[in-house]
Amino acid sequence: MGWGDLGVLGEPSKETPNLDQMAAEGMLLLDFYAASPLCSPSRAALLTGRLPVRNGFYTTNAHARNAYTPQDIVGGIPDSELLLPELLKKAGYINKIVGKWHLGHRPQFHPLKHGFDEWFGSPNCHFGPYDNRAIPNIPVYRDWEMVGRYYEDFKIDLKTGEANLTQIYLQEALDFISRQQASQKPFFLYWAIDGTHAPVYASKHFLGTSQRGLYGDAVREIDDSVGKILKHLQQLGISENTFVFFTSDNGAALISAPKQGGSNGRFLCGKQTTFEGGMREPAIAWWPGHIPAGGVSRQLGSVMDLFTTSLSLVGLQPPSDRQIDGIDLLPAILQGQLIDRPIFYYRGNEMMAVRVGLYKAHYWTWSNSWEEYSKGVDFCPGQNVSGVTTHTQEEHTTLPLLFHLGRDPGEKYPL
Amino acid sequence: MGWGDLGVLGEPSKETPNLDQMAAEGMLLLDFYAASPLCSPSRAALLTGRLPVRNGFYTTNAHARNAYTPQDIVGGIPDSELLLPELLKKAGYINKIVGKWHLGHRPQFHPLKHGFDEWFGSPNCHFGPYDNRAIPNIPVYRDWEMVGRYYEDFKIDLKTGEANLTQIYLQEALDFISRQQASQKPFFLYWAIDGTHAPVYASKHFLGTSQRGLYGDAVREIDDSVGKILKHLQQLGISENTFVFFTSDNGAALISAPKQGGSNGRFLCGKQTTFEGGMREPAIAWWPGHIPAGGVSRQLGSVMDLFTTSLSLVGLQPPSDRQIDGIDLLPAILQGQLIDRPIFYYRGNEMMAVRVGLYKAHYWTWSNSWEEYSKGVDFCPGQNVSGVTTHTQEEHTTLPLLFHLGRDPGEKYPL
Repeated sequence: MGWGDLGVLGEPSKETPNLDQMAAEGMLLLDFYAASPLCSPSRAALLTGRLPVRNGFYTTNAHARNAYTPQDIVGGIPDSELLLPELLKKAGYINKIVGKWHLGHRPQFHPLKHGFDEWFGSPNCHFGPYDNRAIPNIPVYRDWEMVGRYYEDFKIDLKTGEANLTQIYLQEALDFISRQQASQKPFFLYWAIDGTHAPVYASKHFLGTSQRGLYGDAVREIDDSVGKILKHLQQLGISENTFVFFTSDNGAALISAPKQGGSNGRFLCGKQTTFEGGMREPAIAWWPGHIPAGGVSRQLGSVMDLFTTSLSLVGLQPPSDRQIDGIDLLPAILQGQLIDRPIFYYRGNEMMAVRVGLYKAHYWTWSNSWEEYSKGVDFCPGQNVSGVTTHTQEEHTTLPLLFHLGRDPGEKYPL
Repeated sequence: MGWGDLGVLGEPSKETPNLDQMAAEGMLLLDFYAASPLCSPSRAALLTGRLPVRNGFYTTNAHARNAYTPQDIVGGIPDSELLLPELLKKAGYINKIVGKWHLGHRPQFHPLKHGFDEWFGSPNCHFGPYDNRAIPNIPVYRDWEMVGRYYEDFKIDLKTGEANLTQIYLQEALDFISRQQASQKPFFLYWAIDGTHAPVYASKHFLGTSQRGLYGDAVREIDDSVGKILKHLQQLGISENTFVFFTSDNGAALISAPKQGGSNGRFLCGKQTTFEGGMREPAIAWWPGHIPAGGVSRQLGSVMDLFTTSLSLVGLQPPSDRQIDGIDLLPAILQGQLIDRPIFYYRGNEMMAVRVGLYKAHYWTWSNSWEEYSKGVDFCPGQNVSGVTTHTQEEHTTLPLLFHLGRDPGEKYPL
């Protein structure tokens, strides 16, 4: 999902009443970022609190757009990395991941080897269908057991966009929460749905209900599901004891637009780029009775901060034997403090840009290659900022391109 | 102001708490349009309920961008037009305009000749300063009397952007409302501030307070003033008897960006064009106890509808001796009905596009001329949609360019 996909963030159809309500009851973080403009490294950063260049989980070939295909992911999260659920486990937490793991699909990378107690979902996206001989369809797991494959046992109709997966993921979440509440166990739920990732899907009940087409149907189903999860917490009487955070792992993929692509609002470009559209994310913190309702924060935040913030909530210190890049956001979320910190924009292993305050300096600019562009692949459709949305990777390290994101959030006017 | 200038509509700095609150207490109309992408014809349409091509108030040379300068306005609103305040007067209303009139600056066009009882403001924008010999500075009136001129008696500091005008306009509004309440007279106030029109200004108290720069300072001052007006109505105990509507006369002028230009969110282009960025407007209806709080409407609306809607509120019928283009929005605003009606997009006297439901057909496309563009004048900065943002006026009347504004609000993908 992109920053602009939420009604409260200006999506012109305003079709996310539950997320908008979550923001009204909680806090909207307007300047919150993915750790990478790609899903996999961003998820690794979320769970390790570390930049992808540190945890080894970046797309190795930053220059090749198509480096990121199912076949490429021979690697995964190293054993040496300490994941959030591993640490939470020490504090008695039961940890579950529902949905997309994306940190490796070989046995040593399995989520239950990295701190999770339960898993329902897949090691990868729901790409496909594949031919099942040279390339098998992507598997779906319940804990250690492979329970089927996308397109075979878990249907995705590419023609209609129908798939029941978000409903299954929702039920998994509600059941897990109910069980932990019944056994009075503290829990961590990583609800990693992927219905807005191409090929976009929604269940029958939501198909055709959005003004925005299939992508909007998927957003509506996610929005509805978030509402049901929050309501479940309230009905179980544990909402004031449960910190909930909603965000995304990268900006909307504009290459999939308009049928399968979302909105990054007025931000420049989308997924795969280090412009704001590629990495600025919708972000809502919700914790009734603790977070002031209707709050808005301009704290510069990152998905990596959720690692450190979660540890802080539990009363744990982050590991001291390694560099942790995420910061504790609680002072910003609970007391409205503003913590001075930069945001780094990586593309693969290249630091493309840095944000400090309202200023953003691009050391490198790149949309996508001329070769791809000439074939119709465009990470910035309809957008063209001279010298900024460059189709070759342009170096500006001696004189960075500087933008003021307050006056110019669309990165159109270099200072 | 543009659609994207409000926090509730996705401005990334979220600096309009009063307008956002107005929306939370009232109804946000997401699909509301100016009658023209230029201020003057749009204002004529607001007050007559008629398209500019009917009321004679369109820029005659649709092909010349610079047709619209202070010197050009030799004409004005014809005597034959029936203006909203003329009709309201028959129902006992006292009518006041505060701010920008823009329907002619010769004596026969004076607002008090067209139904208004009071006026504080100017016949035109605050362009200038002029040389006071060949071209005098633009006058400011209190009722019939010219009380001074911009830059001379009403200071505007072009260097700092400081001007106290919005505060004066605010005080005029509050005083007028107090007087009408005291004398128990029904009233119509047309509060036509222009602080976001280049040269953008704000008063000292607001200068430098916005992340967005001077333009944001102006927006913040308008936002603050709207809040004070609504609070005043509440404190006088007449809020449940006062219908308030907030909107703008055209999209944000992107030629003035980034220092003096606002945001049209993710919509295409800006003022002067018939893309969504030129004519889709922020629109909030507020009437506590009557309009359901937090409502959102997708009714296609136009500033012309405010004419007919106001008459309906007063119990008057629109004139039957002429074509009225505005419709009564009360069923949409009070009962949530959706009224089937088209939106016409005019540029001068040329009907460039039509919207029916979520579909928009462009019969003509045009951003601005190559000649202007080559000089750096750009109505669509950073945006370039092949075959759509054309620099010559392109005809598509035999095969209109069709867009689905739900799936593609940015008009990037012709169907």
